[in-house]
Amino acid sequence: MAAYDELMAFQRETEALGQIMGRLGWDQETMMPSGASEQRAEEMAALAGVLHARRMDPRIGDWLEAVAPDDLAGQRQVAEIRREYERTQKVPSDLSSAIARTTSLAHRTWAEARATEDFDLFRPKLEEVLSLSREKASALAVGGDLYDALLEEFEPGATGTSLQEMFDALRPRLVALREKVLGAERTVAPLIGTYEEQGQLEISRRLALAFGYDTNHGRIDKAVHPFSSGSGLDVRITTRTEPENPSNCFYSTIHEVGHAAYEQGIDRAFLLSPLGRGVSMGVHESQSRIYENQLGRSRAFTGWLFGQVREVFGDAGAPDAEAFYGAINHCAPGYIRTEADEVHYNLHIVLRFDLERMLIDGRLEAADLPEAWNARFEADFGLAVDKPSNGCLQDVHWSEALFGYFPTYTLGNVYAGCLHEALRADLPDLDETLAAGDPSPATAWLREKLQRHGGLYEPADVIERASGRKPGVEPLLDYLEAKFSDIYAL
Amino acid sequence: MAAYDELMAFQRETEALGQIMGRLGWDQETMMPSGASEQRAEEMAALAGVLHARRMDPRIGDWLEAVAPDDLAGQRQVAEIRREYERTQKVPSDLSSAIARTTSLAHRTWAEARATEDFDLFRPKLEEVLSLSREKASALAVGGDLYDALLEEFEPGATGTSLQEMFDALRPRLVALREKVLGAERTVAPLIGTYEEQGQLEISRRLALAFGYDTNHGRIDKAVHPFSSGSGLDVRITTRTEPENPSNCFYSTIHEVGHAAYEQGIDRAFLLSPLGRGVSMGVHESQSRIYENQLGRSRAFTGWLFGQVREVFGDAGAPDAEAFYGAINHCAPGYIRTEADEVHYNLHIVLRFDLERMLIDGRLEAADLPEAWNARFEADFGLAVDKPSNGCLQDVHWSEALFGYFPTYTLGNVYAGCLHEALRADLPDLDETLAAGDPSPATAWLREKLQRHGGLYEPADVIERASGRKPGVEPLLDYLEAKFSDIYAL
Repeated sequence: MAAYDELMAFQRETEALGQIMGRLGWDQETMMPSGASEQRAEEMAALAGVLHARRMDPRIGDWLEAVAPDDLAGQRQVAEIRREYERTQKVPSDLSSAIARTTSLAHRTWAEARATEDFDLFRPKLEEVLSLSREKASALAVGGDLYDALLEEFEPGATGTSLQEMFDALRPRLVALREKVLGAERTVAPLIGTYEEQGQLEISRRLALAFGYDTNHGRIDKAVHPFSSGSGLDVRITTRTEPENPSNCFYSTIHEVGHAAYEQGIDRAFLLSPLGRGVSMGVHESQSRIYENQLGRSRAFTGWLFGQVREVFGDAGAPDAEAFYGAINHCAPGYIRTEADEVHYNLHIVLRFDLERMLIDGRLEAADLPEAWNARFEADFGLAVDKPSNGCLQDVHWSEALFGYFPTYTLGNVYAGCLHEALRADLPDLDETLAAGDPSPATAWLREKLQRHGGLYEPADVIERASGRKPGVEPLLDYLEAKFSDIYAL
Repeated sequence: MAAYDELMAFQRETEALGQIMGRLGWDQETMMPSGASEQRAEEMAALAGVLHARRMDPRIGDWLEAVAPDDLAGQRQVAEIRREYERTQKVPSDLSSAIARTTSLAHRTWAEARATEDFDLFRPKLEEVLSLSREKASALAVGGDLYDALLEEFEPGATGTSLQEMFDALRPRLVALREKVLGAERTVAPLIGTYEEQGQLEISRRLALAFGYDTNHGRIDKAVHPFSSGSGLDVRITTRTEPENPSNCFYSTIHEVGHAAYEQGIDRAFLLSPLGRGVSMGVHESQSRIYENQLGRSRAFTGWLFGQVREVFGDAGAPDAEAFYGAINHCAPGYIRTEADEVHYNLHIVLRFDLERMLIDGRLEAADLPEAWNARFEADFGLAVDKPSNGCLQDVHWSEALFGYFPTYTLGNVYAGCLHEALRADLPDLDETLAAGDPSPATAWLREKLQRHGGLYEPADVIERASGRKPGVEPLLDYLEAKFSDIYAL
């Protein structure tokens, strides 16, 4: 089967070059001296050119015609290569370059606009990005739905319609839960106090190790925004510290460990191949979310964390473990998605999903975004947006043309709900080890059932295989209702 | 002049990709988790393949035929591109790959052989590397001298014959000086004491800044072996610490700052072009050596450093500034090149130069290397080599097929001698600022006279322009004789 071997050898080099690109991104956010950004942009553009040329290489088309692997892994490898090859072919190279150039500038303008609370500064750039994104979507959709065409890049198999159904099923019960919590008689206090950086990083490290992060194949650094980067044998994560908000550091770390553990846990046989990466953004997010929320924010695990914080800082910002558990899960409406609690989080996403679909299909123009955002936010959260950085300028995604990315966050939560239900059924004594600071029975379950497969199964498929049910919203909603009814004595 | 612009645009991307390769090397030595090395090797091999294909691109040949720039910079750019293109064309791709593969394995075997004092373990690998290097030299030399063909990669313009003349002129006066110093009545003590890492790194940082290292376009990290990496806007250095040998840390840092300042100081108009890198290894080494030795180990500057060490550690390992100056320049024969003083250093290089020329032209076989090394070392240094790690296994170079590299170290010393003589003539009050910890008049002189030109002039040419004389050994020898006669009261 020479064609298959040639195709895979070629792809392996492309994957290796893709890993280098990721490493440059990591370096830029963690190590790069500030004066180097101009040169780095040229370096990354040169490598992007190499990658684009490889992905367009007509030999891929020839190999794809010649291969017909008879095993599942081979078939999935070929399917993933074909999908990427066809998508790359459909988008004219000039358009790809224009998107790369424009988003690079738009990203900078967005940061400046957010810092100066000036949406009008960002508007022309957003219009350009949007126009190019629509053009790309048209090229990809070939007469089909524009938004679906963009979505496929992040979540193969999902459509605007399927996601709409998911949000329609989530929303009423989330809104009802939110209203009950906000009307609860029991009050839950957030954490109080300031916590110096070294101690936060020490606990952060303990958390990463507890959740199975392999520092022999990764490292932890500080960055402005936490992220996980790389696949296979070198998967690095970052975290950040805020003196008055240590739980941000702790749970950012656990979240990124979820992403990293997925990449570190994939069967080594898939190293540097299309199956050697997480299969979709939604499945990736299911891992970060279940680590962070269902496991990390559980009563059992926060009990252990309470002891750790007391040991390192003397005081944990709450009088006892139960108050600490409440503080970690403190529920209140707020402007910022990344700071939202588990109840509010998905409502932030519904808003973005609805608005970005309208932006892509032309029902909403960039100029009208702030008004649409603010009206919707007030309706959903009961708060008037006070400034653009608390509104439609808060997220980086649209400046980078990442239309179709937001819903994968909620999809991840929904998948995490399904996985958690199955995991708890299989591990009835899990709370005992969680209470001892050891989530390893859960992380081992996830590795065995899901992580090791990498891209071997399609997204919805791998969730169904792991959880024993078709993905659906009920387990997440049941979990949230039970957890917050308990915390707020509803 | 479309062909020139096309050629330069193509070359610029190649240079950018080359910078990425350098950055991966830096990451490997400083940041990379230990379990990632296998994947990293594949990543670097993939990028090496991309670079090799670009350097072989037949369009380069077409462009080179079509261009005839009428300015010096354009002519030199074209000359450098032509030289590299022709060298790449001459070496069969299979041979290049075999060298890459073999040196990678040989490097690992060398490290193991050195650690276990087992030359026989390394011998078969050395034979392979040597055989491939001879083959490469034959391909490059096209009937000419094999060693010269290898040398050209590191020092264009130098030949085995010209270097032989240089060593012949150096050796008698160095041997005579060495004998006088070793027979001196005055004794000079080395530094005494142990110095913790944080303090060493703090002084190292002060030294880097004093010598003009630009941390806006670079950073300092720890690594097993100090090195400088990168060109243009991102030039990083590393240093190391040994508790009982703080001067190793201090002077490694100054040495690497010399390399880095050269790269950082090149005219920005040459960024990401062949002229935007140091012009040769010898000229590069002239900068690291003059920073480290003629400036850094001067009586004036060590007087300031003595105060810094006292401030940070309370004790500087010597009773006064004069004793400290002596200790920093303490002269004694030893096995290890990298630990040699200024008098012995070049004697280590003559030995390597003579042996590697014999290895390349076939007068010496790999199996006979230890005997040849040990006999020569005892004759030159008066010491019997006690173990291979103190003899022919001490340096990494030959395992990496870097035949022709060693003599550039002495060439750097010789160039540094010429530059220093001219610099002192132009800056009669330099010792006053050096004594205040400020070498900036000297570093500014070097930047103006030499560093900013990058590859604009050929190696010997840029030294002659800067120093006002043809390169020769006398200034170095005069400097060494004067300095050590003074320290040892000869």
